[in-house]
Amino acid sequence: MVRYVGVNHLVQLVHAIGLPTVLRELAGYIEEDFLRWETFEKVPRVASHSLRGVIELMPTRDAELYAFKYVNGHPDNTNDGLQTVTGFGVMADVKTGYPKLLSEMTLLTALRTAATSAMAARYLARSNSRVMAVIGLGAQSEFQVTAFKEIVGITHLRIFDVEDEATKKFLKNIEGKGFNIHVARSAQDAVEGADIITTITADKRNATILSDNMVGVGVHLNAVGGDCPGKTELQADILLRGSVFVEFPEQTRIEGEIQQMPADFPVTELWRVISGEKIGRKSAEEITIFDSVGFAIEDFSALRYLYDRSSDTGFYADVDLLTEPGNPRDLYSLLMS
Amino acid sequence: MVRYVGVNHLVQLVHAIGLPTVLRELAGYIEEDFLRWETFEKVPRVASHSLRGVIELMPTRDAELYAFKYVNGHPDNTNDGLQTVTGFGVMADVKTGYPKLLSEMTLLTALRTAATSAMAARYLARSNSRVMAVIGLGAQSEFQVTAFKEIVGITHLRIFDVEDEATKKFLKNIEGKGFNIHVARSAQDAVEGADIITTITADKRNATILSDNMVGVGVHLNAVGGDCPGKTELQADILLRGSVFVEFPEQTRIEGEIQQMPADFPVTELWRVISGEKIGRKSAEEITIFDSVGFAIEDFSALRYLYDRSSDTGFYADVDLLTEPGNPRDLYSLLMS
Repeated sequence: MVRYVGVNHLVQLVHAIGLPTVLRELAGYIEEDFLRWETFEKVPRVASHSLRGVIELMPTRDAELYAFKYVNGHPDNTNDGLQTVTGFGVMADVKTGYPKLLSEMTLLTALRTAATSAMAARYLARSNSRVMAVIGLGAQSEFQVTAFKEIVGITHLRIFDVEDEATKKFLKNIEGKGFNIHVARSAQDAVEGADIITTITADKRNATILSDNMVGVGVHLNAVGGDCPGKTELQADILLRGSVFVEFPEQTRIEGEIQQMPADFPVTELWRVISGEKIGRKSAEEITIFDSVGFAIEDFSALRYLYDRSSDTGFYADVDLLTEPGNPRDLYSLLMS
Repeated sequence: MVRYVGVNHLVQLVHAIGLPTVLRELAGYIEEDFLRWETFEKVPRVASHSLRGVIELMPTRDAELYAFKYVNGHPDNTNDGLQTVTGFGVMADVKTGYPKLLSEMTLLTALRTAATSAMAARYLARSNSRVMAVIGLGAQSEFQVTAFKEIVGITHLRIFDVEDEATKKFLKNIEGKGFNIHVARSAQDAVEGADIITTITADKRNATILSDNMVGVGVHLNAVGGDCPGKTELQADILLRGSVFVEFPEQTRIEGEIQQMPADFPVTELWRVISGEKIGRKSAEEITIFDSVGFAIEDFSALRYLYDRSSDTGFYADVDLLTEPGNPRDLYSLLMS
């Protein structure tokens, strides 16, 4: 049997453990896997583009486990009341090739993205960071602030979205979670005095959410929204002033903020910072930028975490996705019995 | 919700419809899709090789539907009582990127492989073919003979396997199914007087199941077992004497019998024969060879068939693989509710 974790199972699991704890534990799994980055096989993602969007398969593996995520990106889906991005994932045993876990990954991706951002900020932001600006209050925003409170110690939020509805939704969701919140009138207002700036807008074009003059010394930029070709949020000048950290350069140069820069634009791989091989922030004045696009190893970590934690909590079902014939050479009897 | 067809659902569906009818209907779906071959996007499969085996993702799509199959190949699994090959598949809506169907594909692949072989033979074998030799009596053998009876009109079988256990299993499974069966003492004995020769051995090396002198004029060779690099069944001379038909040349030149031949060895794509663009069999004396390795479009057809037929029969479950938030920008409420 294959373990199945559906949306309801995951909701129950997060309720049982608590969202901040889930994000902290998940960040720990991601950190562990970044520490052994070189043991992973990195396979290019396989994308199938159509007029309305893209469907991608993102595999990776280590010596024991194989995982892939199915993810779509369909910007117009929102018009039909559907998610622009949904996903599911599978983790399998490398030794036998048998799948072990099938899971929803829309929520799980939201969790791993926030956990990765906060984990990166712990290495790159000033350690006394308490104030975070959040520009873009869509589906990912509440997860980001919860992760940054739990993992980085953020207490003050300065939030902005061009749509009032998004701001209202965010405020309603985050009410009573212990943040001191300033609702900004503009992105410029939001970033005033912020230690960390998180950009997570949904605009699918080369936008300038932040211009160079808006970014002060010592700030850490958590640039999450620029994550596919033609979709960026930062003015290129900012990238020239700061130090840029990425997950997997080959992918980030196509999908991230640095798609605006020449192919040899210098970047530092985050895993090298985590392993101690490279230095992250060099001074309190430096501008650090995590140009995050999401990478298959983070999904691998998330599935690995979910497998372990669903074992603990029992929030899963066993499904008959695989045949289990008495004699492996006798599928026919299995079918006709 | 996503439709889930597990092993038990598929077993129930095949019982309800009947295996021969399922194979005939499925061959019709495959034929339909071969007829519109050029409307499919062919994406290279993504393989992850490890010491003990391989895990592959095989995607394809047309303008409306996207499908992929997860399949492993682990030759040593049999030693642990596991299948060497298992699989599952997903079909999704290209317009929204949302998965519609998640299905077991170990049994379904066995069905589509047999349906494809028989469909090809209907175009390539002599129309008065009644006698089929089957060399290799593993998991695929019963499906092949059932499909060839239903679709091609085979009434006489001449069977051979190096292992007596395999022969016993085959005879037990096929008893009472209306075949006249000769249990051969050798492959040479099996092919005597056969109109069609099906080779489906499991030996994972360059074997010579058939040598050139064993293949008489007018025979159709259904070469199914040679399906990955380093695994072939036919002596190269046979390929030189006959006309070779393939699914997707780029893939067959790596995985099929023609991996033994130069890169420019002439082959005919099966879909061009089905569409009437190319001629299949040119005379009663010609030797035709279907060098089958299995292609993603056949899996697409199988999932498309299964979706339609599970709608008719109700043998499926709905699972919560996808989030369905009231507001697509508010995943957080869904998780915390």
